[in-house]
Amino acid sequence: MSSLNKINRGTNEIIPVKDLEKKLDKGTPLKIKLGVDPTAPDLHLGHTVIINKLKTFQDLGHKVVFLIGDFTARIGDPSGRNETRPIMSEIQIQKNINTYTEQVFKILDKEKTEIAYNSKWLNELGINGLLNLASKSTVAQMLERADFEKRYREDKPISIVEFLYPLLQAYDSVALKADVELGGNDQKFNLLLGRQIQRDFGIAEPQVIITMPLLEGTDGIRKMSKSYNNYIALNDTPKEMFGKIMSISDELMYKYYELLTEVDLNEIKKIHPKKAKSDLAKTIVERFHGKQESAKAEKEFEKVFAKKDLPDIIEEYRIHNTKITLSELLVQSGLTTSKNESRRLIEQGAVRIDGEKTTIDFDSSIKKDNCFIIQAGKRKFKKIVLCD
Amino acid sequence: MSSLNKINRGTNEIIPVKDLEKKLDKGTPLKIKLGVDPTAPDLHLGHTVIINKLKTFQDLGHKVVFLIGDFTARIGDPSGRNETRPIMSEIQIQKNINTYTEQVFKILDKEKTEIAYNSKWLNELGINGLLNLASKSTVAQMLERADFEKRYREDKPISIVEFLYPLLQAYDSVALKADVELGGNDQKFNLLLGRQIQRDFGIAEPQVIITMPLLEGTDGIRKMSKSYNNYIALNDTPKEMFGKIMSISDELMYKYYELLTEVDLNEIKKIHPKKAKSDLAKTIVERFHGKQESAKAEKEFEKVFAKKDLPDIIEEYRIHNTKITLSELLVQSGLTTSKNESRRLIEQGAVRIDGEKTTIDFDSSIKKDNCFIIQAGKRKFKKIVLCD
Repeated sequence: MSSLNKINRGTNEIIPVKDLEKKLDKGTPLKIKLGVDPTAPDLHLGHTVIINKLKTFQDLGHKVVFLIGDFTARIGDPSGRNETRPIMSEIQIQKNINTYTEQVFKILDKEKTEIAYNSKWLNELGINGLLNLASKSTVAQMLERADFEKRYREDKPISIVEFLYPLLQAYDSVALKADVELGGNDQKFNLLLGRQIQRDFGIAEPQVIITMPLLEGTDGIRKMSKSYNNYIALNDTPKEMFGKIMSISDELMYKYYELLTEVDLNEIKKIHPKKAKSDLAKTIVERFHGKQESAKAEKEFEKVFAKKDLPDIIEEYRIHNTKITLSELLVQSGLTTSKNESRRLIEQGAVRIDGEKTTIDFDSSIKKDNCFIIQAGKRKFKKIVLCD
Repeated sequence: MSSLNKINRGTNEIIPVKDLEKKLDKGTPLKIKLGVDPTAPDLHLGHTVIINKLKTFQDLGHKVVFLIGDFTARIGDPSGRNETRPIMSEIQIQKNINTYTEQVFKILDKEKTEIAYNSKWLNELGINGLLNLASKSTVAQMLERADFEKRYREDKPISIVEFLYPLLQAYDSVALKADVELGGNDQKFNLLLGRQIQRDFGIAEPQVIITMPLLEGTDGIRKMSKSYNNYIALNDTPKEMFGKIMSISDELMYKYYELLTEVDLNEIKKIHPKKAKSDLAKTIVERFHGKQESAKAEKEFEKVFAKKDLPDIIEEYRIHNTKITLSELLVQSGLTTSKNESRRLIEQGAVRIDGEKTTIDFDSSIKKDNCFIIQAGKRKFKKIVLCD
């Protein structure tokens, strides 16, 4: 497979492809930028889609710069969101930076990765530098960004400082002299602005932008996000990680293969979906927890689920109050019609949590996993998701 | 007349009047801010409307701060204009500052006036200070400003930096702890933002804003402005100044009295308009050139015009090409029907320029005044205005 093909896999857009080809043809290492605001306390598989693409560049011999927006994090960019993001404390930012870098090197080669902090040049930019930068774009251009446009149309406030955010992150590309910038699909506007601003600052061959699709969460519907509780965190236990991957649909599995692995998709389609899914779970868990933990998680999973006749689709039921008792939970989720029936089933040993018999009407808060399967009787199942 | 009445004369709005009363009742000197961007090379009577109001405050014992926007001038605010203002060079700004201060003390008492430069605190504000400031307002609020709204609607570019301008000048009010801010009518939005931002920065009794109407130019139609060539510059010669004031309509004269003098308007209305106008011209010329020059200018004017039977209204004719001959000008302005007729009249001594006979068909560019009156025959007059 050619370099371009490897880079192209799973991407949403490469703008402009011709410029990328030209840059690749030079044969010298390119500078690949990924800017991340350390706003989330820990990474999930959704974040790794782009980090995997960075790894592809790294493996091809290019220079990867993992740019931490420690300056911009204090402003916050609401890309794809509907409201002004709260401003973070310095301590929270520093804590998040540590978590980020620790986790990102589960994928990237630490020795070959440059970590940069945009506070370095943005603090130096000064008020005059910022004003100069602000003169490079227009209100109309900013309001073309879908989320700004939507909020403006819906009379939701957009702080002026939010218009400065895209310009500051664009200036990062000037400071870094980036050849390529990666980002999520929702970053397309910002990335293109980086290209424009580089040109304004006299960079003759401005960056090529590569956008990656947003990975759907385990529900297969919304993008993976902590706030939707449909995420697989890199810090999830091997058991949680394995179980969550096994719970996704076949369709989503192929997408995960495309975006999270470099495995040949044609080969995957030749094997049975159940086997393919289990292989995927093993591969992912192995990446973050090592071979041994991965094998252990698989075995445990087999023991609990694989030998039972679990239905292919288990309906999900979300709860917010974790202080609920099991008998009450059975009623609420529709598995029984009364608490009396619940208690009777529990006493009879006809209720299973993740495949294990339960004979006590416990308080559900004692379950520490945030996702588990309840079985009531022979054929009734519910996937319970605890929401914060 | 009470202090409030003196302050109120000629104003457009005082917001809120109650707060002004409360501040005045304290009996201690208030801090009165007027912010001026040194963008125009010289002042005209239009500028003095507000400076006169400052003088009123000064005479009432308040502390007047003449704030020179040497920092903000580099950004430029397009209030009331239709396009982004060009960024000025440091040299041009410094030159303009000198002209400004020199001229402003023809009205204000130099000893009692504080001159401040906003570069002092804005340079210190830093990038973080500016970002903090930018978080205090929203895109929607800025787009409420009439000129921004119009430009946005008409797809004319608004640079992001222009959204920062009103915030910076608002911050000036924080730095100065202004009690009152004066401005033109077109500054209402900015002045109110100053009040809001003062509150955001913890000033419990924020500034009262006073807006003054824009003075119409000598044409009585558009606001006085160098670009409309309808202005009376403070640096105009006594003769020019006198002549220009004498050329305005009676209606405009009363407005000029209200906005440019402290004379009792009821008294003025009792005297003949011609006398009133001549008194006004004398008063204004005296203010900027002294008693002697004023008297001289009046005498000269009398000699040229007053003894002729000049009609009350002389139609204006504007020319752009100053290389035109007199005979051609007579045709174009409609005073004659052919160049032959023009030349005949000139030779007969029936053509007068500012009341003086002309017998040569001269090139009009030799006239150095940019406004003069041509008389052809006994009853035909035109006011010729040279436009740059």
